[in-house]
Amino acid sequence: MVRITIVGFGQLGRGVLEAIKRNDDMELSSIITRRPEDVRKELDGSVAVYHLDQLKKSFSTKKSEVAILCVGSKDDVAKIGPQVAAKYNTVCSFDIHEEIEEYSLRIRPIAEENGKVYMLSNGFDPGFFSLIRFIGDAVLPESKIYTFYGPGVSQGHSNAARSVSGVKDAKSYTMPVQESVDRIRRGEMPTLSKRQMIWRKVFVVPKKGADTDKIRSDIVGMPLQFDQYYTEVHFISQAEMEEEHHASPHGGFVIIVGVTGNGNKQIMEYSLNLESNPEFTSSVLVAFARAAFKMSLFGHSGAFVAGQTPLFNISPLSPRELLRYFM
Amino acid sequence: MVRITIVGFGQLGRGVLEAIKRNDDMELSSIITRRPEDVRKELDGSVAVYHLDQLKKSFSTKKSEVAILCVGSKDDVAKIGPQVAAKYNTVCSFDIHEEIEEYSLRIRPIAEENGKVYMLSNGFDPGFFSLIRFIGDAVLPESKIYTFYGPGVSQGHSNAARSVSGVKDAKSYTMPVQESVDRIRRGEMPTLSKRQMIWRKVFVVPKKGADTDKIRSDIVGMPLQFDQYYTEVHFISQAEMEEEHHASPHGGFVIIVGVTGNGNKQIMEYSLNLESNPEFTSSVLVAFARAAFKMSLFGHSGAFVAGQTPLFNISPLSPRELLRYFM
Repeated sequence: MVRITIVGFGQLGRGVLEAIKRNDDMELSSIITRRPEDVRKELDGSVAVYHLDQLKKSFSTKKSEVAILCVGSKDDVAKIGPQVAAKYNTVCSFDIHEEIEEYSLRIRPIAEENGKVYMLSNGFDPGFFSLIRFIGDAVLPESKIYTFYGPGVSQGHSNAARSVSGVKDAKSYTMPVQESVDRIRRGEMPTLSKRQMIWRKVFVVPKKGADTDKIRSDIVGMPLQFDQYYTEVHFISQAEMEEEHHASPHGGFVIIVGVTGNGNKQIMEYSLNLESNPEFTSSVLVAFARAAFKMSLFGHSGAFVAGQTPLFNISPLSPRELLRYFM
Repeated sequence: MVRITIVGFGQLGRGVLEAIKRNDDMELSSIITRRPEDVRKELDGSVAVYHLDQLKKSFSTKKSEVAILCVGSKDDVAKIGPQVAAKYNTVCSFDIHEEIEEYSLRIRPIAEENGKVYMLSNGFDPGFFSLIRFIGDAVLPESKIYTFYGPGVSQGHSNAARSVSGVKDAKSYTMPVQESVDRIRRGEMPTLSKRQMIWRKVFVVPKKGADTDKIRSDIVGMPLQFDQYYTEVHFISQAEMEEEHHASPHGGFVIIVGVTGNGNKQIMEYSLNLESNPEFTSSVLVAFARAAFKMSLFGHSGAFVAGQTPLFNISPLSPRELLRYFM
């Protein structure tokens, strides 16, 4: 059994709890959180819960093989990650793309000194999309790599639309520009602007008596958030908002177009269509916790992304079973 | 530089030669073939060419780091592979799915005893499709995995159609059943028969005066080849055959449908759309030759599929570059 400590018990941590239940070789050992009292109450005392401050003290981590970091990337991973890495084999979904190299270099000596494995930046993107991008680049040199997002909800843009005067509620969807996608899938290799990659579809519940024309132009013209994209604003009722737009789906796809021989086009595509983005990330984290555990057993230590571990390590099956059932 | 020996100089071997040219860190060292005289003539003496029999003798392999096996899977890989594995780090595209486990177990001690790395079954399927299948299974336990082929040319079925009396020329395409694909992409998890997975579209040039109704019924009813599938037969002229059907495109896709949390559907899909299937396989082989070389440098030996090596190894870039550009 791989015994897991969940660090941070928000949406992602809850997803990890669910994912552990779906994996017979996994069990929850403990939860570390900023609000242990609330979590103890919520879980009826069925699991050991500790305060985040405990990480600063010396304590036995023998009961857990891997800690899964479920705190936010923006502030918390960079702060809490190094503390956790010194005590546990660790998995995270750190997703600030331009800081991954630096974070990996920072965490590596900490993990190495403590004989631990730290698997970073697992999930949707960074994660599997990253894997497919470098595989495509390695197999098809000089290829063009396109990453499209959507259809999916953008929390940031929904919040931005909600801040507009006269708006009661809003939800903004990121949509791939179908015309560009079609061109690439036909084997063209265009250079695309932001506007040619995605567009935004915003559903708005206006306040009573609000000027919808003004709302529309305020949203469409909002600097950085919407003005760089083609944006459609649709006005709907609160009932419609609740019925049709309560979920948080997300998705996207990576397309790689390369050329071999005398000009033969070769197209590779990987897509995710997720009804729940955080639950998918949680499932990925749990699979990579298994990899961290196995790598540690095999005597490795340091910082690793998905491309730096043999991927058989994420499966509960033996190499022979994997060769038999999946090749 | 990774110096490559090509073993077998048919369509795949020629593809490897082309792929080496597109990779700055690779160079061709020698070619081993059953007809060295022909190959020497074809390549104007620019590369060392040896007869296959040489493998049975003792000779220096110092000038080459990796041998790429470009002989047919059905008879030759299993026969020649062990001989090559004893002398070189080796890469192959062995594609008889039900024999991969056994072949891996057979080749492993040979590679280990000789301190060599053997990377087997690389390409389209087995290969990347296998990788995606076990990744999907690991991340989404209890998911359903679907592998569709096409649109693409089936050489075997084209030959079968050509053998029908009254047929001058024929080309058979494997086509995915769109209705089934659509159901799965919507998140359904049906159990599908062969007939619900693919259908066949056959283009036939009839001989002068041939009975086209009889040709149609002979093809559609042909046991094993066509009778288990919905099959459409289209009659065309020789000119049309040459203009529209001279290429050998292939493709296919793996779709994985899983469930997380309280029933949220999560769909992962990986597709290849290849204008030249053999050239794609060649490109994959060359990338995995790099992995075999690196693994050997790091002191490994034995037999490995793609899931048993860190995939950063297939890239010419350094880990730091990969973290910077592709995460």
